[in-house]
Amino acid sequence: MSQTSDVSMDIEEDRIREECGVFGVFGVDNAASFAALGLHALQHRGQEACGIATTDGSIFHTERHLGLVGDNFTGDDPSERLPGHIAIGHVRYSTAGQTVLRNVQPLYSELHTGGFALAHNGHITNAYTIKDALVEKGALFQSTSDTEVVIHLIARSGGKEFTDRFVSAMRQIDGGYAFVGMTKDCLVGARDRFGIRPLLIGRLNDSYVLASETCAFDMIGAQFIREVDAGEVVVINEDGIRSFTAFPNAEKRPCLFEFVYFARPDSIVSGKSVYEVRKRMGQRLAQETPADVDVIIPVPDSGVPAALGYAQETGIPFELGIIRNHYVGRTFIQPTQGMRDMGVRLKHSANRSMIEGKRVLLVDDSIVRGTTSTKIVRMIKAAGAKEVHFRSASPPIKYPDHYGIDMPSKDKLIAANYSLEEMTHMLEVDSLGFLSIEGLYWAMGEEYRVDEAPQFTDHCFTGCYPTPLIDRERELAGGGKQLSFLVEVA
Amino acid sequence: MSQTSDVSMDIEEDRIREECGVFGVFGVDNAASFAALGLHALQHRGQEACGIATTDGSIFHTERHLGLVGDNFTGDDPSERLPGHIAIGHVRYSTAGQTVLRNVQPLYSELHTGGFALAHNGHITNAYTIKDALVEKGALFQSTSDTEVVIHLIARSGGKEFTDRFVSAMRQIDGGYAFVGMTKDCLVGARDRFGIRPLLIGRLNDSYVLASETCAFDMIGAQFIREVDAGEVVVINEDGIRSFTAFPNAEKRPCLFEFVYFARPDSIVSGKSVYEVRKRMGQRLAQETPADVDVIIPVPDSGVPAALGYAQETGIPFELGIIRNHYVGRTFIQPTQGMRDMGVRLKHSANRSMIEGKRVLLVDDSIVRGTTSTKIVRMIKAAGAKEVHFRSASPPIKYPDHYGIDMPSKDKLIAANYSLEEMTHMLEVDSLGFLSIEGLYWAMGEEYRVDEAPQFTDHCFTGCYPTPLIDRERELAGGGKQLSFLVEVA
Amino acid sequence: MSQTSDVSMDIEEDRIREECGVFGVFGVDNAASFAALGLHALQHRGQEACGIATTDGSIFHTERHLGLVGDNFTGDDPSERLPGHIAIGHVRYSTAGQTVLRNVQPLYSELHTGGFALAHNGHITNAYTIKDALVEKGALFQSTSDTEVVIHLIARSGGKEFTDRFVSAMRQIDGGYAFVGMTKDCLVGARDRFGIRPLLIGRLNDSYVLASETCAFDMIGAQFIREVDAGEVVVINEDGIRSFTAFPNAEKRPCLFEFVYFARPDSIVSGKSVYEVRKRMGQRLAQETPADVDVIIPVPDSGVPAALGYAQETGIPFELGIIRNHYVGRTFIQPTQGMRDMGVRLKHSANRSMIEGKRVLLVDDSIVRGTTSTKIVRMIKAAGAKEVHFRSASPPIKYPDHYGIDMPSKDKLIAANYSLEEMTHMLEVDSLGFLSIEGLYWAMGEEYRVDEAPQFTDHCFTGCYPTPLIDRERELAGGGKQLSFLVEVA
Amino acid sequence: MSQTSDVSMDIEEDRIREECGVFGVFGVDNAASFAALGLHALQHRGQEACGIATTDGSIFHTERHLGLVGDNFTGDDPSERLPGHIAIGHVRYSTAGQTVLRNVQPLYSELHTGGFALAHNGHITNAYTIKDALVEKGALFQSTSDTEVVIHLIARSGGKEFTDRFVSAMRQIDGGYAFVGMTKDCLVGARDRFGIRPLLIGRLNDSYVLASETCAFDMIGAQFIREVDAGEVVVINEDGIRSFTAFPNAEKRPCLFEFVYFARPDSIVSGKSVYEVRKRMGQRLAQETPADVDVIIPVPDSGVPAALGYAQETGIPFELGIIRNHYVGRTFIQPTQGMRDMGVRLKHSANRSMIEGKRVLLVDDSIVRGTTSTKIVRMIKAAGAKEVHFRSASPPIKYPDHYGIDMPSKDKLIAANYSLEEMTHMLEVDSLGFLSIEGLYWAMGEEYRVDEAPQFTDHCFTGCYPTPLIDRERELAGGGKQLSFLVEVA
Repeated sequence: MSQTSDVSMDIEEDRIREECGVFGVFGVDNAASFAALGLHALQHRGQEACGIATTDGSIFHTERHLGLVGDNFTGDDPSERLPGHIAIGHVRYSTAGQTVLRNVQPLYSELHTGGFALAHNGHITNAYTIKDALVEKGALFQSTSDTEVVIHLIARSGGKEFTDRFVSAMRQIDGGYAFVGMTKDCLVGARDRFGIRPLLIGRLNDSYVLASETCAFDMIGAQFIREVDAGEVVVINEDGIRSFTAFPNAEKRPCLFEFVYFARPDSIVSGKSVYEVRKRMGQRLAQETPADVDVIIPVPDSGVPAALGYAQETGIPFELGIIRNHYVGRTFIQPTQGMRDMGVRLKHSANRSMIEGKRVLLVDDSIVRGTTSTKIVRMIKAAGAKEVHFRSASPPIKYPDHYGIDMPSKDKLIAANYSLEEMTHMLEVDSLGFLSIEGLYWAMGEEYRVDEAPQFTDHCFTGCYPTPLIDRERELAGGGKQLSFLVEVA
Repeated sequence: MSQTSDVSMDIEEDRIREECGVFGVFGVDNAASFAALGLHALQHRGQEACGIATTDGSIFHTERHLGLVGDNFTGDDPSERLPGHIAIGHVRYSTAGQTVLRNVQPLYSELHTGGFALAHNGHITNAYTIKDALVEKGALFQSTSDTEVVIHLIARSGGKEFTDRFVSAMRQIDGGYAFVGMTKDCLVGARDRFGIRPLLIGRLNDSYVLASETCAFDMIGAQFIREVDAGEVVVINEDGIRSFTAFPNAEKRPCLFEFVYFARPDSIVSGKSVYEVRKRMGQRLAQETPADVDVIIPVPDSGVPAALGYAQETGIPFELGIIRNHYVGRTFIQPTQGMRDMGVRLKHSANRSMIEGKRVLLVDDSIVRGTTSTKIVRMIKAAGAKEVHFRSASPPIKYPDHYGIDMPSKDKLIAANYSLEEMTHMLEVDSLGFLSIEGLYWAMGEEYRVDEAPQFTDHCFTGCYPTPLIDRERELAGGGKQLSFLVEVA
Repeated sequence: MSQTSDVSMDIEEDRIREECGVFGVFGVDNAASFAALGLHALQHRGQEACGIATTDGSIFHTERHLGLVGDNFTGDDPSERLPGHIAIGHVRYSTAGQTVLRNVQPLYSELHTGGFALAHNGHITNAYTIKDALVEKGALFQSTSDTEVVIHLIARSGGKEFTDRFVSAMRQIDGGYAFVGMTKDCLVGARDRFGIRPLLIGRLNDSYVLASETCAFDMIGAQFIREVDAGEVVVINEDGIRSFTAFPNAEKRPCLFEFVYFARPDSIVSGKSVYEVRKRMGQRLAQETPADVDVIIPVPDSGVPAALGYAQETGIPFELGIIRNHYVGRTFIQPTQGMRDMGVRLKHSANRSMIEGKRVLLVDDSIVRGTTSTKIVRMIKAAGAKEVHFRSASPPIKYPDHYGIDMPSKDKLIAANYSLEEMTHMLEVDSLGFLSIEGLYWAMGEEYRVDEAPQFTDHCFTGCYPTPLIDRERELAGGGKQLSFLVEVA
Repeated sequence: MSQTSDVSMDIEEDRIREECGVFGVFGVDNAASFAALGLHALQHRGQEACGIATTDGSIFHTERHLGLVGDNFTGDDPSERLPGHIAIGHVRYSTAGQTVLRNVQPLYSELHTGGFALAHNGHITNAYTIKDALVEKGALFQSTSDTEVVIHLIARSGGKEFTDRFVSAMRQIDGGYAFVGMTKDCLVGARDRFGIRPLLIGRLNDSYVLASETCAFDMIGAQFIREVDAGEVVVINEDGIRSFTAFPNAEKRPCLFEFVYFARPDSIVSGKSVYEVRKRMGQRLAQETPADVDVIIPVPDSGVPAALGYAQETGIPFELGIIRNHYVGRTFIQPTQGMRDMGVRLKHSANRSMIEGKRVLLVDDSIVRGTTSTKIVRMIKAAGAKEVHFRSASPPIKYPDHYGIDMPSKDKLIAANYSLEEMTHMLEVDSLGFLSIEGLYWAMGEEYRVDEAPQFTDHCFTGCYPTPLIDRERELAGGGKQLSFLVEVA
């Protein structure tokens, strides 16, 4: 059946992956139920594990699971098991082998100032370096998550008020992160000094909500208020919201990948409709890299808005030429390769009647390793296409991320290693085109990229990282990246 | 959260449902693995239960499960547990309360002529009447499935050859059905005298395959040969295919609902691309019921091809205005109402940026009870639409099915009880339109409907049932519909 | 660790096994709860599967499980899931490979006369012969259980009243059996014409109870009334008990193995305390086969009463020299050999302080294959015994059972193949002794065995089978024993 | 069914419970398999959770479960999942509500000196006081187990060698404890300065084993070498055993409850056969509190040796008058009261034939709250006893434990609150007797109790606690006992 594996495979297996989505709510009766709904709306940001912590002002409750929110939290009313009027929640994708329950967030600890729970989207780029120093001082680590480093820093901070300690911890760490935390009295939200990872504030009657995307607000009927600012800490309690500035000179520079791939199309990010930005990418792509074809076919589902934009710009018919099987087993969250080999390529098939004898343009949001693109091209050719052209609605991905996006290493990124001609040949297509970095900034509504201080985090395309990468440099210099040698079987 | 339930709900909860998909293969080494792949491709025809039976020519093996094929059969190689070169399989949707494992197919029995396994898509309209007569003669029934009646008829038939007994049983039953059966020597396929339910023959090297749709052939790399004819029995063994005519005067009259909703868009049914037929429905719908709107939004996913057809016919922009959450838990296969209340409306949300301030045309494949349509309309309005118009790509559904489609009773079918004006008011839309029955026949490539002998089974729209409905009449006359009073807890 | 396997092993692995226990109750509010308690008391008669059926006079409910009663029925109130005032229940041991849920009892069928459920302890010795004839007439069998044959015979019987049909079916079958059945109106109990398998009647206020042993009555506070007679059918309904005689010339001849091993020591069987009978076996054993030893050690748990009897008769100290680990996993119900190899020998250990340097007499209820006895002897020697003597509280087992007892075939029965001297050598003991058949009858309170018409079923010791063995003879003559070639994976 | 609850109940529900058993092995190929076998032998010391940690000298592996060893570790070869030549393991009983996986041992932490795993039997009486101080310094606690305090003390100790740090930590804690720990290089064992909790050293060819009882050595074929001394630390590595003295003036004073109830009868504790000591308790009990009765009946299973001792001393017949149902579901490890109400009293029944019309003496190992004793007495009376006398083979329990034994508070201990006459009345017996404290010392082989420096830890009978009880005093003084307010749902 090797032939089969080429013509009906998994389009998602070469996607990059967000590591997390976070959610928080203060001041509703059954906070856990709102958290479950909000996390469900954020499920696309991480499908491997999920957790909720609540407090009623004295007792904390936590519940953490491997698997989907909808399988773990919606069966019964979660707020019966997790009472309280404050809740935080987390969805997570993680690399294989480390997915044990002790790494699932929110993490909880008893500090001298009382109980504290924390959920985190992003990555701290000097976590291992800090951890080494802490362990040397006798600190005990229970997880391999970088989030725990933050809790240790808070626990050991000398500040009087909780907020002081929290800000003190933030100032010791580098990276891209959005935190949602909770004491027995308040809900806390914070964003790194560049605002790399997103965090938004919403309002639900008299209550406040924090979430990674606006789609979580839509799910529970909350109103979007504003974004948490770059380097800002917000503390929500019975008296309302207070704002603290952790980094006075913070410059906002949100990650473009939220627009390219991560965010749900119906979310508003940085004040922009993700769906509209993606259509504009397709529109600009049509201008930059035209194609003489009969039909435009999106690579489902993330290629759809750009393909529509391309089609509307050119007048060429848009058709669903690749059909997705919605009833695939949960194979894409199975960590074993055996499962991937067996189940994962069962997800998509070609719609022959829209392809046979036609010149086809495939539009995808991006090209990572190129392996899946090649399989798609072969599937389309096997369905009888006369020509196959391919367009990426984002620029060539040439540099790895270090802020919480799971991505192959640089030697696996096709655009980092091959020319356009080579890639055209490798993908076996008649033509290949990428959106330019200028085109991407145009789609974002900018006239041009301010090279000395870019308006967005765009290192994957440009190599321009906003923060130092201390753990990375230490690792390259031969320093151990990983202290833990524990393998937990169950 | 009652507000929430209006603005983010489950579009599928008012769908009608196919009850089954069937598959069979003769002459491959690991027949069960092919059956698992084929059933996976047919999963859209039934998500509640699945089963496979195999034989190696002497021993029979069966494995039956509640749940999806991909969760039950693809984890390991199924042909290790289910050895053999002949396999049949079944996917099933069923009404709540009866989903116990003993009703899951394929059913197996030892006949005097040897072991026999049977899987069935459709419904036998005189099953209860026959069952009563058999029980009176001392026959024991173990399931409440109508399929078991057929096995009893075969067991009690006097014919010498197995085929004679099988044909004899077929001649005693009315209804719409596609059978895939298996003895230790052969694979059997059969279709009712009108060919209401589909069954197709494919070829895989030297082997033969039977399936409800061509997408199952695509999945395993088999070539589509031909349909099983109306009233035909095919017997496949080592010598190839033999054909028997159970009903000499059979007139082919396939069910239109395969095109309207059931079949996968990439399947070829009755020689036609389902995707193309659906686009033609949308095209004709645009001609019959034009609308002065800014944007065309499909009700996902089954409304997409018709919406594309409508948009291409009119030049009005097609946009994804309703976003589907792919990570919904398995709530739609949960039988309890509690789960439906909690989880099921978490599936879709409005893409506000494509709706706000616009005149919107929603296109769906059909309208059943109208309850979901109303919820969708409200969701679109809540997202800021200036006007909302609604179009059904099929004619008004006025009559229930009796051939294996799970559908509400007549008093719940909105079009059976209300005028177009009333429905426009009930759905709270600015205009409402349905495809005409003539339009539907046109989309199918027919010039007109031959009223004295319709080319298709279209009773849901016309009340014109191809077969007698004996059990139904008996029930209306006060006769018991159901012999069984057993409730099986587990 | 091969040494380990000798010195700490499973004493139960060479036990013979009862196949079933049955229970029925008529006329209590929550009949299923009484059934669960009664079955729990009968759990020693079968640990592999259990089931309960109830009726409230119109609807029947059934629930059947693999595993223990206490794991499946006591967690919640079973009568909530299984409402009704009549209940029957079943516990079962069965040979590996056939333990699929469809074979678990009670079996339910809809007859022309209405619903009927049946549970069965014992074995029908002409079941396969009858089944062949029925299948030839077109009867469909769903299980491989001999119990289903009885239901088919009832279904096809021409009698007018249900009782006539039931008696007619009984007269067509041979074997040792106790039936507990149920229609929507009545509870039925029946015993084979020799009363080989036990069945007793109890009273619970105004209600009636049927059970295999009195310990089930003690559990629920019911009073023992009388045994069902050999060949008697009792029908219990709102008017009380009616008795029918299926076999006018029935001669009572209960199975001695109930006393030797099966029945719980606190049960009263055939009017005798099982515990007292076992002590009398030990007392007589001491007289017949004295031993010059320092300490008497029972093989736990079934050897304990006989060892006490031996010790009291001789004045030699009785000590617990073998300690049982109560926390063994459920390995003894695991069918795989791998599990047995790994887990099963973890059950017992030697109490060295009572053994070291002593002359030890081991007393067990019986010796079957001798393999376990040998392992026990080695364990006792490894703990430092100076001499080891062995006594069996029953006579040599030389003939297999055919009435529902799971026992090795004749070539595996040590006493059927070897002399006392050979066995003494094989068991590696200093002396070996068995109770005589006369001694066993004496322990039962009889003066002597009436050889022409024995008072008890004793064929395992004497070869004297009370009934014809038609299936067995047919099998020996080359006729197929088994029609079914189905392997059900799950 | 309230009547039922009196006559067939759970004898174990009023038992006191050991909290833990520990095991360690150094220098075998598949250390985890030995640990699983050893823990299985120690299962009677804790049935609620179990865990194993291993190391191969570089990577650590852990696996922790709720439930029995035999259900979690013996199915497959545990050493495949848990490779390594060093292993430690733990079985645990714990109070309801705290049984979440994060509290299950062994606990693992990365220290500055490398990975470290620890398992613990006993209780640290100043753990909360130390924890408060550590949290104030910024230490993070992940479990509510007192064991974690020890790991923090090791992590923060300034010693150079690991052993120095370990001894330093031990010197900061009070209580009764036996530790088994493991670094990547060595296995560590330690016992509190009074040797309250047991720990023994065994030898398996060239390897060493540590365990709570000798029965764990018997299970794997290891030879018992010696006890770990009071206040001793043993470190086992490739060079053999080294011994360190944590407390120079340690005085050995092992806990008498190991003999009264906890240890398995076939274990050798403090050089004495537990079975023999228990028989001597019964023998002395017969001398101290004679009874004019017809039969001696043990309360199973822990009352058996003392009842045998009583019977042999007096010549009165010993009979099994209470029968235990071995097939009870796992109800006794279910934490909910509902389960206890339903299932737990299904465990025992009276053997009427040995009781009816007789004067019965019941012998149990101890009396805790007296509630179960009363139920047993009622069950025996309901079975027809003419008189019922009761003897406890240990002295009256008047004081709670603080060293790892789960026991009711003082106001629930019957002997702490009532006179012998009152208890005789409350238990509804004709006479009641306890072994004297002198009798208990005699049974232990001592001539008399040295009151100024008792040879054994006997505070439950005498109130004489060997260590300060700092947490307890702080709690009585109004200081919080518990820092953690976290409830973990799953």
